Amino acid sequence: MIVILKPHPDREQLDNLIGWLREKGIQVHHSLGESHMILGLVGDTSRLDIDLVAALDIVEDVKRVQEPYKNANRKFHPEDTVVPVGSTSVGGGTLTIMAGPCSVESEEQIITVAKAVKAAGATMLRGGAFKPRSSPYSFQGLGAAGIEFLIQAKRETGLPIVTELMDASQLDYFDEVDLIQVGARNMQNFNLLKELGAQKKPILIKRGMSSTYEELLMSAEYIMSQGNEKVILCERGIRTFETYTRNTLDLAAIPVLRRLTHLPIIIDPSHAAGRAFLIPPLATAAVAGGADGLLIEVHNAPEQALCDGPQSLRPEAFAALARKLAGLHEFMNGGAARS
Amino acid sequence: MIVILKPHPDREQLDNLIGWLREKGIQVHHSLGESHMILGLVGDTSRLDIDLVAALDIVEDVKRVQEPYKNANRKFHPEDTVVPVGSTSVGGGTLTIMAGPCSVESEEQIITVAKAVKAAGATMLRGGAFKPRSSPYSFQGLGAAGIEFLIQAKRETGLPIVTELMDASQLDYFDEVDLIQVGARNMQNFNLLKELGAQKKPILIKRGMSSTYEELLMSAEYIMSQGNEKVILCERGIRTFETYTRNTLDLAAIPVLRRLTHLPIIIDPSHAAGRAFLIPPLATAAVAGGADGLLIEVHNAPEQALCDGPQSLRPEAFAALARKLAGLHEFMNGGAARS
Amino acid sequence: MIVILKPHPDREQLDNLIGWLREKGIQVHHSLGESHMILGLVGDTSRLDIDLVAALDIVEDVKRVQEPYKNANRKFHPEDTVVPVGSTSVGGGTLTIMAGPCSVESEEQIITVAKAVKAAGATMLRGGAFKPRSSPYSFQGLGAAGIEFLIQAKRETGLPIVTELMDASQLDYFDEVDLIQVGARNMQNFNLLKELGAQKKPILIKRGMSSTYEELLMSAEYIMSQGNEKVILCERGIRTFETYTRNTLDLAAIPVLRRLTHLPIIIDPSHAAGRAFLIPPLATAAVAGGADGLLIEVHNAPEQALCDGPQSLRPEAFAALARKLAGLHEFMNGGAARS
Amino acid sequence: MIVILKPHPDREQLDNLIGWLREKGIQVHHSLGESHMILGLVGDTSRLDIDLVAALDIVEDVKRVQEPYKNANRKFHPEDTVVPVGSTSVGGGTLTIMAGPCSVESEEQIITVAKAVKAAGATMLRGGAFKPRSSPYSFQGLGAAGIEFLIQAKRETGLPIVTELMDASQLDYFDEVDLIQVGARNMQNFNLLKELGAQKKPILIKRGMSSTYEELLMSAEYIMSQGNEKVILCERGIRTFETYTRNTLDLAAIPVLRRLTHLPIIIDPSHAAGRAFLIPPLATAAVAGGADGLLIEVHNAPEQALCDGPQSLRPEAFAALARKLAGLHEFMNGGAARS
Repeated sequence: MIVILKPHPDREQLDNLIGWLREKGIQVHHSLGESHMILGLVGDTSRLDIDLVAALDIVEDVKRVQEPYKNANRKFHPEDTVVPVGSTSVGGGTLTIMAGPCSVESEEQIITVAKAVKAAGATMLRGGAFKPRSSPYSFQGLGAAGIEFLIQAKRETGLPIVTELMDASQLDYFDEVDLIQVGARNMQNFNLLKELGAQKKPILIKRGMSSTYEELLMSAEYIMSQGNEKVILCERGIRTFETYTRNTLDLAAIPVLRRLTHLPIIIDPSHAAGRAFLIPPLATAAVAGGADGLLIEVHNAPEQALCDGPQSLRPEAFAALARKLAGLHEFMNGGAARS
Repeated sequence: MIVILKPHPDREQLDNLIGWLREKGIQVHHSLGESHMILGLVGDTSRLDIDLVAALDIVEDVKRVQEPYKNANRKFHPEDTVVPVGSTSVGGGTLTIMAGPCSVESEEQIITVAKAVKAAGATMLRGGAFKPRSSPYSFQGLGAAGIEFLIQAKRETGLPIVTELMDASQLDYFDEVDLIQVGARNMQNFNLLKELGAQKKPILIKRGMSSTYEELLMSAEYIMSQGNEKVILCERGIRTFETYTRNTLDLAAIPVLRRLTHLPIIIDPSHAAGRAFLIPPLATAAVAGGADGLLIEVHNAPEQALCDGPQSLRPEAFAALARKLAGLHEFMNGGAARS
Repeated sequence: MIVILKPHPDREQLDNLIGWLREKGIQVHHSLGESHMILGLVGDTSRLDIDLVAALDIVEDVKRVQEPYKNANRKFHPEDTVVPVGSTSVGGGTLTIMAGPCSVESEEQIITVAKAVKAAGATMLRGGAFKPRSSPYSFQGLGAAGIEFLIQAKRETGLPIVTELMDASQLDYFDEVDLIQVGARNMQNFNLLKELGAQKKPILIKRGMSSTYEELLMSAEYIMSQGNEKVILCERGIRTFETYTRNTLDLAAIPVLRRLTHLPIIIDPSHAAGRAFLIPPLATAAVAGGADGLLIEVHNAPEQALCDGPQSLRPEAFAALARKLAGLHEFMNGGAARS
Repeated sequence: MIVILKPHPDREQLDNLIGWLREKGIQVHHSLGESHMILGLVGDTSRLDIDLVAALDIVEDVKRVQEPYKNANRKFHPEDTVVPVGSTSVGGGTLTIMAGPCSVESEEQIITVAKAVKAAGATMLRGGAFKPRSSPYSFQGLGAAGIEFLIQAKRETGLPIVTELMDASQLDYFDEVDLIQVGARNMQNFNLLKELGAQKKPILIKRGMSSTYEELLMSAEYIMSQGNEKVILCERGIRTFETYTRNTLDLAAIPVLRRLTHLPIIIDPSHAAGRAFLIPPLATAAVAGGADGLLIEVHNAPEQALCDGPQSLRPEAFAALARKLAGLHEFMNGGAARS
């Protein structure tokens, strides 16, 4: 960490600062420029509160040189992490396709969709049981019953299941869930993150709508710092001024996170786009950009048209997309070039 | 709600839609323009999922005419709500000043600050005990002990206290807390909102960093729909591209929310600005813009310089500001003109 | 256009509005809902000022049903437009690769880079001569001399050239330029757009950093409405709260613009990312997402290290990327599957 | 400027960098931390291209210590600048009220409004003659004739006039204009800024919709670096995700710019809000926040209702607001306290 002092700092305040830093086990190197004195701090600065130091009267600015996360940091863990999820695993060069409806509506519905997406090539089943809805008057999901139906669909198809948990009190229902999803609105629900870090199941954590890459990694760090290293990151669009799409999918998240962390990176084009016709191009773009997998909404049978979500693909469209994605993933990894 | 159909809608799909709407108790009025048919929906459309309807193949667009919130809506509750908080109350033409340190650090610290802010004119004491921190390695607050210290400060000064609750499991510690704060990161923690709606204490809910006015009102609605009408709204800055300030304080929130809702509106300039020199001008701007009150960070004694937050005022600066604010509030409400 | 009136509108004001609309040749259809009267406007509403109508006391809201652009609108021009540019053309299923340095620095430099990018597969040469720089103290480009050097490079390699024009007064120098670039900061320089619409050369117009898709299309419409239909759109990243990347590349622009307009769509990953390691994954993502082409910065010889831009690829890296992109484009269009 | 090197930098590249810096007259101080070497650059670094240095392989990060602007910088010009504008002046403790219609529509209209706003206390007349409109089909303003009408209104009332110039080619018409406005969309039209810097009239420059404070100051610097020091800054709202207001008025701009620069700061609440009922609270907030003045839209006579802008006040509402603002300005500056 580098501390840039204001010109002519008060000597006593400077001594106080240096003393306080040394008490915390930090070595301090001085450098006297013409106009600004600079302190180079060496040691474990991840526990220093950068805002506290920046607030001092004598300090012009503070600059971190090291990232504030450790367990999630590729510098300390150069190999890609592969997260085992039920009978499959995420990361490490494979392409994960998590597919299924926005909400679990009935046992029949989720089993039908599960069979369809499995046949089309999905490697995991998604479906919402506990639904975060911005209105208290909207359907809040089937809850525990929805998870039961997902488990039935898993038994019928063998697909591992991923579903969202909204509160630690729901953990009891998640015994047979393979991957626990933390939604974008809960990305900085730190109590929840700690509780998920204290249990064993892998976690898929979605980037908040206005969260930076670093904040997403710090939220992963919350989970990992409690002992659970099985974390998968998910980009699902950020909030911008553009209103045609619900959110702006930020595909630069893939190479940036790839460089900063060893954790797998999943892209959710459905929530970002909010319109079904955008899913195939965004999904192919994500795979060509290096994503470890996708989270795609696939809706129910076409005759129940009123339950189609605006952001869901029909099963046939999903099957065509899944074929394209498999070929594209092979091409990007050199398979097609070799043939 | 108005549904604009695409040109030449499929007859069967249109009949399905109209039938489905009527089943839900909605009356449907047709209007045939030259290029677009329009459906006017009359009845309780607050429970209709606008996204579902917008997703239909035959639908071009859907437009709400009524707001999706009721309890929080000024149309159904024209009088300003005054929320009683301990020995004081918020809203209704008074100016509430909540002041205190970012974090409770010790009993002595919080009592000292409480006495100082009371002497300066504050009407409520704030202080963080459970602290949401983006890093698991940062100080997480004193927790239950911090709340004990706040209660001591309340006993010594008589000031009602406001402090943040991060998880419903902490409710046991909040018996003597007068006003429960929901932080920006928990604004859409819907399970928490429901639990807070099911108890009796008043709630101060902060706008999320990328939340719209409507989303803030829907979060208030979550609380109110469970029976707790004592909700106070707080604007604390939104996330934009500007990096000089931590967040961009959106003072238009005051007149906009004033028009949309009857709930009191508090402004927090400290978190938005992130720098102490910005607090006085933003605080005076907020009062001149019609805010019902302010939430202001005031730090400890100057000799503990290292604990000063970059966004905190020293007690003397706060006292000068509080005097200015009181005069300004009187001026804005015609007092000065009368004198 | 649909006008939603407030409940119980003043009769005289309503008659005034309807009379004014009819004077403008608009037919007005009434529809009386229970709580809101709705007016459906039929006719050429593209010349109606939506803000004016929305401002009336009796109006609750106004909603456009038709897009405000015509020449750029796919509804009135269903076929993809192919824009001829010198000896090549953009759009229509081909993949355009515009490559070259950020700035033209010397005749030798630009010719060296031009030969390198041509050998690697580029179809057009880019290079800045008039440079928009946020500081008046930064290098402002070689100006007219830079364009001379570009023309020399075109003569040596046969590559058509694209370079930015900042002001209509520079048009004299652009006689031998094949494609005129309008930068993001000039996207709404309406006088410039009109002047470019009144001449014959094709225009590459970049989306402004905080411009919506519709605003980009309206800027294209400015050019087209003056008679120049040869417009190419370019997405180069928008401004968000994320600071790791310079801008957030919005690849949903490809399928959205594809649906709304018939004009070709180019992606510039270099400016959006601001870091060279992000260019290859963003470029492949763009091609897999359906872009008609890319605008990529390639820097000078490695020995002149101080002139490398942080967002430029070295020639060898560009050559490898160009090969990948060609194969990917073939794969996406079914070529690889056939082989 | 501080350059933080990556661990174990290549010796030859480091020597090249240091040599290049010394050639430019920069002194280089080394500081060797445990993990990172730091270079402190001393001298005139405002001409160094920070991006170039940051792009080097051996560089981890670069941090400016000094602002990149000089003429606009308060550090080099501690006194507030007062800009003379016709018979009045802006800055220096007075409150400037620029008021008038969005567009000049006729001689009669502008003279009527001019008289009304003068009677109400306005100190300057505004009105658009050259109008930047996002659609080529919208009314583009009366142009040169509109400026003639403004000049007539000035002759009748004595109010100095401010109006927007969109292109340097229009300068001929501005001989009798007192203050030239540069619109938000032209804030980074650098050629225009240079031309305005080369003439003598004062300039009101609006912050771009997605421009930072520093970018606004750099645009002011463009004008000032050409010799014209008479620059007034204007905040008019930035683009965010909130759609209820047209833009988000950023009142922190007042104290931030006050600290960074000596130039006067004007607030335009009309364009930011987009709705008339928001103007009075935002205007009072701006004055209480320390603005040097306001730019307020006041519309024509009420009988011409269709020309009212949604963001314009009626003359009587403006008169009441102007009285309030005058009293508030006096209160904020101690006047009321003295009485």
